[in-house]
Amino acid sequence: MEGNVVRYSMLKKALIGRPLKTRELGEQKLGRLKALAILSSDALSSVAYGPEQVLLVLSTIGLIAFWYSVPIGIGVLVLLAALILSYRQIIYAYPHGGGAYIVSRDNLGENAGLIAGGSLLVDYILTVSVSVSAGTDAITSAFPQFHDHKVAIASALVVLITILNLRGVTESASVLAYPVYLFVLALLILISTGVWQILSGQAPTNVHTPVGTVVPGISLFLLLRAFSSGCSALTGVEAVSNAVPNFKEPAARNAVSTLVMMGFILAILFSGIMFLAYWLGITPKHEETVVSQMASEVFGRNFMYYIVQGTTALILVLAANTGFSAFPLLAVNLATDKYIPRMFLIRGDRLGYSNGIIILGIASILLIVAFRGETEQLIPLYAVGVFIPFTLSQTGMIVKWIREKPASWLYKMIVNLIGALICLTVVLIFFITKFAQVWSVLIFLPIIIYAFHKIKNHYEAVGEQLRIAPGKEEVLQWEGNVVIVPVAGITKVVENSLNYAKLTGDTVIAVYVAFDPESEKRMEEKWKEWKPDIRLVTLHSEYRSLTRPIARFIDLAMKKATESNHTVTVLIPQFITKKRWHDALHNQSSLLLRLYLIYQKNVIVTTVPYRLKK
Amino acid sequence: MEGNVVRYSMLKKALIGRPLKTRELGEQKLGRLKALAILSSDALSSVAYGPEQVLLVLSTIGLIAFWYSVPIGIGVLVLLAALILSYRQIIYAYPHGGGAYIVSRDNLGENAGLIAGGSLLVDYILTVSVSVSAGTDAITSAFPQFHDHKVAIASALVVLITILNLRGVTESASVLAYPVYLFVLALLILISTGVWQILSGQAPTNVHTPVGTVVPGISLFLLLRAFSSGCSALTGVEAVSNAVPNFKEPAARNAVSTLVMMGFILAILFSGIMFLAYWLGITPKHEETVVSQMASEVFGRNFMYYIVQGTTALILVLAANTGFSAFPLLAVNLATDKYIPRMFLIRGDRLGYSNGIIILGIASILLIVAFRGETEQLIPLYAVGVFIPFTLSQTGMIVKWIREKPASWLYKMIVNLIGALICLTVVLIFFITKFAQVWSVLIFLPIIIYAFHKIKNHYEAVGEQLRIAPGKEEVLQWEGNVVIVPVAGITKVVENSLNYAKLTGDTVIAVYVAFDPESEKRMEEKWKEWKPDIRLVTLHSEYRSLTRPIARFIDLAMKKATESNHTVTVLIPQFITKKRWHDALHNQSSLLLRLYLIYQKNVIVTTVPYRLKK
Repeated sequence: MEGNVVRYSMLKKALIGRPLKTRELGEQKLGRLKALAILSSDALSSVAYGPEQVLLVLSTIGLIAFWYSVPIGIGVLVLLAALILSYRQIIYAYPHGGGAYIVSRDNLGENAGLIAGGSLLVDYILTVSVSVSAGTDAITSAFPQFHDHKVAIASALVVLITILNLRGVTESASVLAYPVYLFVLALLILISTGVWQILSGQAPTNVHTPVGTVVPGISLFLLLRAFSSGCSALTGVEAVSNAVPNFKEPAARNAVSTLVMMGFILAILFSGIMFLAYWLGITPKHEETVVSQMASEVFGRNFMYYIVQGTTALILVLAANTGFSAFPLLAVNLATDKYIPRMFLIRGDRLGYSNGIIILGIASILLIVAFRGETEQLIPLYAVGVFIPFTLSQTGMIVKWIREKPASWLYKMIVNLIGALICLTVVLIFFITKFAQVWSVLIFLPIIIYAFHKIKNHYEAVGEQLRIAPGKEEVLQWEGNVVIVPVAGITKVVENSLNYAKLTGDTVIAVYVAFDPESEKRMEEKWKEWKPDIRLVTLHSEYRSLTRPIARFIDLAMKKATESNHTVTVLIPQFITKKRWHDALHNQSSLLLRLYLIYQKNVIVTTVPYRLKK
Repeated sequence: MEGNVVRYSMLKKALIGRPLKTRELGEQKLGRLKALAILSSDALSSVAYGPEQVLLVLSTIGLIAFWYSVPIGIGVLVLLAALILSYRQIIYAYPHGGGAYIVSRDNLGENAGLIAGGSLLVDYILTVSVSVSAGTDAITSAFPQFHDHKVAIASALVVLITILNLRGVTESASVLAYPVYLFVLALLILISTGVWQILSGQAPTNVHTPVGTVVPGISLFLLLRAFSSGCSALTGVEAVSNAVPNFKEPAARNAVSTLVMMGFILAILFSGIMFLAYWLGITPKHEETVVSQMASEVFGRNFMYYIVQGTTALILVLAANTGFSAFPLLAVNLATDKYIPRMFLIRGDRLGYSNGIIILGIASILLIVAFRGETEQLIPLYAVGVFIPFTLSQTGMIVKWIREKPASWLYKMIVNLIGALICLTVVLIFFITKFAQVWSVLIFLPIIIYAFHKIKNHYEAVGEQLRIAPGKEEVLQWEGNVVIVPVAGITKVVENSLNYAKLTGDTVIAVYVAFDPESEKRMEEKWKEWKPDIRLVTLHSEYRSLTRPIARFIDLAMKKATESNHTVTVLIPQFITKKRWHDALHNQSSLLLRLYLIYQKNVIVTTVPYRLKK
């Protein structure tokens, strides 16, 4: 066993690095540039599918409707601006982090907070599954020979990201930062080259209908649907506000800078891609993404094309990392409030909240396996899970401004009001236009919130039971200890146990379970000779069970002991074998007896180890 | 947990019946007819494939060589007679059962016994796998739509037989007796009808070459190989001698009667089938068994044909039951001699040796799965595994007769000598002619015997360590008890534990692990106010581990305690939650700490349960 422990801890060290001391915590804090890489990959990667979602909806009418992507893009940008401004206000108002959960809880009450927190908790699992699956699709599109192993590849990637996160925040940032920077750079080059070609007249001008062309068959419903699809590009924007405590001091200011940087980059990439797609007349195809078509149109299939495609694939996989940064922190907030198990509060060897990281990893692998890697159908669910907390937190901010009325509160409130209304609209549009894909949120959210309450009730009931109220109902003070020693024969182990029993008990009773009358008689005779001063009780077991007769005897003994205000202790010897395989050679009935007595009979059990030397 | 236990024991009762008292043991003993059914299905079922194995070897020469099956059949009958006579002598000499293992051990020494015992132990597993697979083949031949589910069907059959055996010997006999009787009856009708047809001249006379025809290309090697193949029909003969203690009194006489009955039936069935196959000129075919061809020749494809086929399939499956009767008893013998774990000595609820039954069931399912139900290739290995112990036990009997020289010992010795020589020859022929299929016995037998010795050494070393040698090296007598109570805060649980500690210890030390300086200071202040009379030690944990600092402190405490001849007890409180799922909400670190202290640090640990009421 000792060997196993050593081997396990060596393996652990090799995978996640040497343990860190608590006071090394400061060293793990994030600078702005690293934070940008860690926290924005989710948001930035969504430009790889957001514009495409809009065009997909518009293409149900035809190429003629594509000019609507310009106003829709502007609408999304407005929403983005509203979100950034709102979250900027949230970060300053809540410098200890928390995001939607804390904001909703503090301003709208417990249940609003739990709806926001529950949505986000599930959403981060969806983030990981959806992003990794999409990234795996990109990989298996490039190497079709791996297509049959999609689930295995995606799961392996989740395991890899989990390990990186267990190693600790900064180290995983170093690994993950470069692909994000490269992706941003590649898309900026793509967009600026495209815009340059347009400005210099090299791009075709006849493939797009001018803005304002009358489109037959268009409806407000369809446009709103396209708009809500575009909003999926905004998922991940909230990550920064949840992670404020991870920033270097001054944390709030650094977080806001990061948020604004991210907003600008997201705006440039999103509008650039929307505009190029419209101008170049790109139609979504099943077999090729919009970004891929755009890159091949602008660059041709050269080196730069593959850079764009490669970094896109990579950032999709890394977007999962945002979930790994945000999930454990949200879990800490919920666990602090006792809505989820306390284990989420424990920092691991490398100071990350390992339990949250591990559970997120396992849950996303389960989702990937359950959906066989085809998690695209989860995107609408995922988007709804983001916009519900968006709506709640902005509503919360409105309430806060009205209640606190700080300087220029009216302006601040209007910012949040616009944001809240747009977000609510997006949520409603999702429910109206994509009900088949999002209905499950109406089932699992109530279940999660019910569980949150049950857990909190339990913790509060325990706290109540353990609290020492001075002067009131004293804890029972025993006057003596009856020690019961089950014995299997006359051996050194028994002698050892009896010695200890005499040392700690006022009354010592040895108990022997006999399976037949002969062994009973033999034992009684031998005992009288060996330990005449210790009382031996022999019990008969007609059914060859040890536990049942002993338990019955202990019930009796406890009843008698309680009358004279004594407690009962059962002494159980435990062989400690020298080698692990020796354990199989020894009856494990003492282990079962111990569990049975502690859990079913509520008896104090003392385990006396007896180490075998050979 | 309480609910789980109740549910488990209800399920158990439904599957294997109500528990039986030890004194109901006598009622489970076997009468002769039931014993015949239980113990002979293995031996009798082998006539379904034994003759075919002989013809398969002869058919490599051609139909002209088939008359040799008559002398070969006579040779097998001679061997059968020798085995029956020999085992008759063994049963009287060893009325407490044991068969090859006991006989070889007592007369040839430990290792010979272990070779015999080890071979048989593995062989019973092979019996179960091979028989059930063959029976499943018969079933899936009749219902080809189940062919793809062969492994599942075979495994389910093993599970079924395992459950029947766990219910108890007599009850399984009642279920299993009728198919055996039916099989014997069906084959007797087949044989007598066939012989009647021959005598009354209805059978063709031109399809077989007369006995004595000169066969070109025949060799002694080939004939011996055919003979050894025929010997596979004799597997299972030893089952009766192992099971003598299962018989009603007078056990030995009843066992011998059963053995002789079985020998006669086996001889009649074997020679009848050999003769009919020769006379009717039946050639082995891949797609139809010899017995099936014979039955269709004699009866046509009518009702009787299906009775023969059906009972053949059934008895093959039931042959597995012989393994289930013999394996646990052999395991008891080996466990009594401490060569295998003690758990094989324990009688289950229904008085069978459940551990042996369950392990046999699991091992055979593993073999069936590993060989995907194609266990026919294991038949030679299985036959070798039978004839090695046959040879050893007969050699053992020779030694016994020479040493003890009872009345007519010379006659007895010659019987065993002939038997031993034939068996040895069979083993040698197997190794020479079928080495590719039996070599593995040369690997696993030494491994098993090495394991036997290792296990015995361990048990003897333990016994040595536990034995109380009067006057010599007294068990240490402690003079006091230092109780260490890890505390997490100031709660009723802690108060409860401290009360118990004061009751049982001479010195009480509370230990608090602080993760940061603030909590350390806070705790020390609160403690001074609450329990000024109990010493509180605060430990710092830079790596946020509870176990390591506590273990280090306990090392120190133990060192100091030993100096003054005190022992150290660690008191660990354990929450007993009201509902199972509540456990997930409580840190299980106390459990880990307990295991670590007991197994790694050799410290006495007292678990004080604290039952939560809500």
